[in-house]
Amino acid sequence: MRIALTIEYDGTGYYGSQRQSNVPTIQGELEEAIAKMIGKHVRTVLAGRTDQGVHAKGQVAVFETDSSLTLDNITKALNFYLPEDIAIKEARKVRDDFDPRRDALSREYCYYIWNEPTRSPLRRRDTLLVRRPLDVDVMNEACKVLEGTHDFAAFASELGERINTTRTVYRADIYREGSIVSCIIEANAFLPHQMRMTVGSLLKVGLKLSDVAAFCKVFEAGKPGTAGPAVPPHGLFLMKVNYPGDEI
Amino acid sequence: MRIALTIEYDGTGYYGSQRQSNVPTIQGELEEAIAKMIGKHVRTVLAGRTDQGVHAKGQVAVFETDSSLTLDNITKALNFYLPEDIAIKEARKVRDDFDPRRDALSREYCYYIWNEPTRSPLRRRDTLLVRRPLDVDVMNEACKVLEGTHDFAAFASELGERINTTRTVYRADIYREGSIVSCIIEANAFLPHQMRMTVGSLLKVGLKLSDVAAFCKVFEAGKPGTAGPAVPPHGLFLMKVNYPGDEI
Repeated sequence: MRIALTIEYDGTGYYGSQRQSNVPTIQGELEEAIAKMIGKHVRTVLAGRTDQGVHAKGQVAVFETDSSLTLDNITKALNFYLPEDIAIKEARKVRDDFDPRRDALSREYCYYIWNEPTRSPLRRRDTLLVRRPLDVDVMNEACKVLEGTHDFAAFASELGERINTTRTVYRADIYREGSIVSCIIEANAFLPHQMRMTVGSLLKVGLKLSDVAAFCKVFEAGKPGTAGPAVPPHGLFLMKVNYPGDEI
Repeated sequence: MRIALTIEYDGTGYYGSQRQSNVPTIQGELEEAIAKMIGKHVRTVLAGRTDQGVHAKGQVAVFETDSSLTLDNITKALNFYLPEDIAIKEARKVRDDFDPRRDALSREYCYYIWNEPTRSPLRRRDTLLVRRPLDVDVMNEACKVLEGTHDFAAFASELGERINTTRTVYRADIYREGSIVSCIIEANAFLPHQMRMTVGSLLKVGLKLSDVAAFCKVFEAGKPGTAGPAVPPHGLFLMKVNYPGDEI
């Protein structure tokens, strides 16, 4: 049977989500825990690729097994074997041809900013410190331009051989709650570093180092690497991956 | 002049708030940072004593200096010298006989519980994991009994030579927000381990291992060390110290 796992992790100690030799990764730890549970090594497929230091509240991974364990016991066993900074929130049975990447309708990312003159020891690990007050209204005005289907090349750092840089943004929102400014973007898919380059550009607007017109100009020119600079990874969370209906 | 500092810290790496030789403490780090700033060692007085591993959002400390630095520059200089897990939120000038302990009207503590069947990697450092669902209503019923002026001896772990175990609780509240159950108690002062022993007793009620009547019985009997057991320190925060008027 094919099992989909919803995974939360603190990405601080990992070289990103994707398996690599000789360095700790989310996928590496997950496959090791699965091997301990079922006694053999299987490959997993992850819904979203998160960079080194990026966190997740709702990453999705799929693996195949003929184990007779219940879904509840799979969750418990994996959480027993996984390190304290990774946990399975839920395990579900999915159809045999379910692909967590291809079948995803959208991904939601959130970036958290600690917007106060003084740093916060208690939120130092999961927020970016920005000391000067951000103008959230003007940031929202800029990020509304992103909604819809567009060429996002300007917000991609490494294009390589990638040809198609068109993505659809369903929602782009900035809001303040006390000391925290949150930037939420939901899109069908993201280019490499798109979220961090976008937040970097929006910060310039919010700090009045740039304006909405300049933001739009860079976006429309679509020259790779011209937006940003990319903000650091520790404020970024993969919040949720959405699938059709109630499939997961 | 006499300066009052409002301090936030992640207590994970410290042996409590009070100065001790040869181990890192909040007061030790603070006095070291002040010495680096003004070039000589001065003693500080802290409003509340927090145990090893307990955090603070609003601890208050006072020191005396003839430095000509502005309050804003004192904040900036101390935050430059302090480690990343301690920060000054604000510095204020106070009257010469201001005593952060004696003059405090009340202290507010909050204890956070992650109340879900599965652990949370992202909240593992600042919440206690309780897997079985807590009955918040019955916990609230029990903790309302604490409000008012009472003998809190049952909730104290180490009394030593202490004679007076009467304290006044102004507010005791439990509420749930999503996966987090918060226990907030505001009192004129707290006995050693009172907050953690109280939360331990309330958890037993919330898990139906005890009931409100049994909770009251232990409370009224007032035999030291009979409540609890004390919950671990990492979910506990000193939120705020309140002073008369707008003194601080």
